[in-house]
Amino acid sequence: MAGEPSGGDLSRLRQLNSLAVIKALQGGTSLTLTEVAKHTGLSRASTEDVVRELLQKGWLTEAEPTAGGVGRPARRYRFRAEAGRVLGVDIGGHNVRAVVADLDGAVQNTARVPVTPEMGRAERLEAVDRAVTECLETAGLTGGDVWASGVGTTGLVDGVGRVVLSEALPEWTGVDLAAHVRRLAPAPVLVENDSRLAALAECWRGVARYAKDMVFLLAGLRTGAGLVIDGKLHKGFANASGEIGALPVLGWIRAQEHLSGASGEAGDVFAAARAGDRAAAAAVRRYVRDLALGTSALVLALDPQMVVVGGGFSRSADVLIDPLRRELDRWCIRTPEVRMSALGEEGVVLGAVRLALDDVEDRVLDGRTPLLSQP
Amino acid sequence: MAGEPSGGDLSRLRQLNSLAVIKALQGGTSLTLTEVAKHTGLSRASTEDVVRELLQKGWLTEAEPTAGGVGRPARRYRFRAEAGRVLGVDIGGHNVRAVVADLDGAVQNTARVPVTPEMGRAERLEAVDRAVTECLETAGLTGGDVWASGVGTTGLVDGVGRVVLSEALPEWTGVDLAAHVRRLAPAPVLVENDSRLAALAECWRGVARYAKDMVFLLAGLRTGAGLVIDGKLHKGFANASGEIGALPVLGWIRAQEHLSGASGEAGDVFAAARAGDRAAAAAVRRYVRDLALGTSALVLALDPQMVVVGGGFSRSADVLIDPLRRELDRWCIRTPEVRMSALGEEGVVLGAVRLALDDVEDRVLDGRTPLLSQP
Repeated sequence: MAGEPSGGDLSRLRQLNSLAVIKALQGGTSLTLTEVAKHTGLSRASTEDVVRELLQKGWLTEAEPTAGGVGRPARRYRFRAEAGRVLGVDIGGHNVRAVVADLDGAVQNTARVPVTPEMGRAERLEAVDRAVTECLETAGLTGGDVWASGVGTTGLVDGVGRVVLSEALPEWTGVDLAAHVRRLAPAPVLVENDSRLAALAECWRGVARYAKDMVFLLAGLRTGAGLVIDGKLHKGFANASGEIGALPVLGWIRAQEHLSGASGEAGDVFAAARAGDRAAAAAVRRYVRDLALGTSALVLALDPQMVVVGGGFSRSADVLIDPLRRELDRWCIRTPEVRMSALGEEGVVLGAVRLALDDVEDRVLDGRTPLLSQP
Repeated sequence: MAGEPSGGDLSRLRQLNSLAVIKALQGGTSLTLTEVAKHTGLSRASTEDVVRELLQKGWLTEAEPTAGGVGRPARRYRFRAEAGRVLGVDIGGHNVRAVVADLDGAVQNTARVPVTPEMGRAERLEAVDRAVTECLETAGLTGGDVWASGVGTTGLVDGVGRVVLSEALPEWTGVDLAAHVRRLAPAPVLVENDSRLAALAECWRGVARYAKDMVFLLAGLRTGAGLVIDGKLHKGFANASGEIGALPVLGWIRAQEHLSGASGEAGDVFAAARAGDRAAAAAVRRYVRDLALGTSALVLALDPQMVVVGGGFSRSADVLIDPLRRELDRWCIRTPEVRMSALGEEGVVLGAVRLALDDVEDRVLDGRTPLLSQP
């Protein structure tokens, strides 16, 4: 086939090549030009061009030469993860978490401010301010050092960072989280539903790293779902996907009630079930039965590679996971692999970090590369 | 950003450019080089190269010059849709349909052989042979003229064209449809679930042409679903997506029973409901209530842009569509647009044609372009 690529095609290719080189060098590895070329599949000449430009722009720097070997060692390059910072925030019913990470996603500092499910909007936003300020200050940073912020919240979120519907938190519907967080750090703010961010985190650093299609269950005082389809978070036409819990016959509305009945707090019920208490074990069975109904609907609809259970209850994996698998076997044509999240309650805030990093990487692709100071 | 594209990148770009030119010229339009360049966004030089090569390979030909205008008219080119043929087959409970189409997907000839839901495997396959043979013969073709075949069937299909599970048709589990149809036409055979093919047809030629995310309902003597996510048929990890009907609480297992009770055949019930029969109207309401439960689960999970109702019952749109919308409003956070299929019972076989055309186009992209005779 013939046909020279157009100018637009070439510029897009160059951006993709730049991103490929950055990806090859992320995660703290340092590589020689030869190694970069091998990792990216680019020609030696292309690799040299791309690396030269990324050095000039401050994305890469020369790494310390490794010891040993004969003669002068080849120059090595590394990604300047320290060149920028992103902020992740998780606004939950019981805690507000803030995290600062470098451009590799390595967490630099964290802060947590306890809240209650009953708190009103102003109090909860004030907790957000405290968590973010404390997190930045302890790290010796100001809001101006942040390149992008990711924010996770319960409820439905619109495309510009407002909560359009929250049934779990009082006075939360209508809050403009993007605008609020931008006051603290003026960089772009991305806001997303918490279950989805936890799903994102599982695909990035959790048990779903190799899954293309995945159903994530946020199992805790609320039940939510995040869907990853073909390697991407599935949001839906109006950003309202994963809301299967709204259908009463699928059991998620009543699921948690089984745990808050006789034996006090949910954690207590799991502990009592573990210790052999029969009433507690029966309550857990009823909870799992309802959790599995909605999950089966998602599994039958999508046939995912994996179901990952996260959220607060994932600490009680030992009493949850086998019964859940058995219930899924009852309803599903093919029960996928069921895994407990290893990220637990950190999942949402890590997903918020990933969301912010995606935004930074999009800017590399767009050519809207942030201007870096020289190392 | 810098970096020259590698050889592999360029060859991929050339294939994409070739496909872009073919797509611009499909559908019976003829264009000048200038117009092709404008449609594809390629440079004039690239366009000339690509068109020259596609002429040599027999994909394009020079079109008749259009009359009028001053001076010698610019040369026009068109896609040689007649250069090849694809076969589409729909194997249903009541009919086997076969269709021959050109490379634009224009149907050249059709054949239909009635079958019954009770027929065994041998008899049904024999009906497939008759439908395909009749369709090809009446069009003056042989199996060797077929470039690719698409086949639709009820049940779960594996990646190599075998039915791995069919509950609707007797002796159908385990049948190797790809091997069977290859005996009739030796080109590649793609086999897919019928609901999914009908979904594909809606996105191609039906009411979902502009929808990226769509839930298709096959509403008829069975209820099935096909999902289109981000413009692509969603198949699932083990090709088992869309099987929400297996979950009893979602109502699809019992849905049709409401229609086959008091008033005879389903079509009669819809007619009676239309004529004001109260028992029939109540039966239709119960059917719609169950249809809507499973549909709401899909809508809440995926938040699609559109729900399209096809299959045999789509002829009774007038008594189905408004009640379905009202039921969806009861359960869904956002009720998507609900549309009746305009393709009706032809949807599956048209989707089979599209599946075959996709395979032919993949071969253009791969560089495995079929060798064409000169026009």
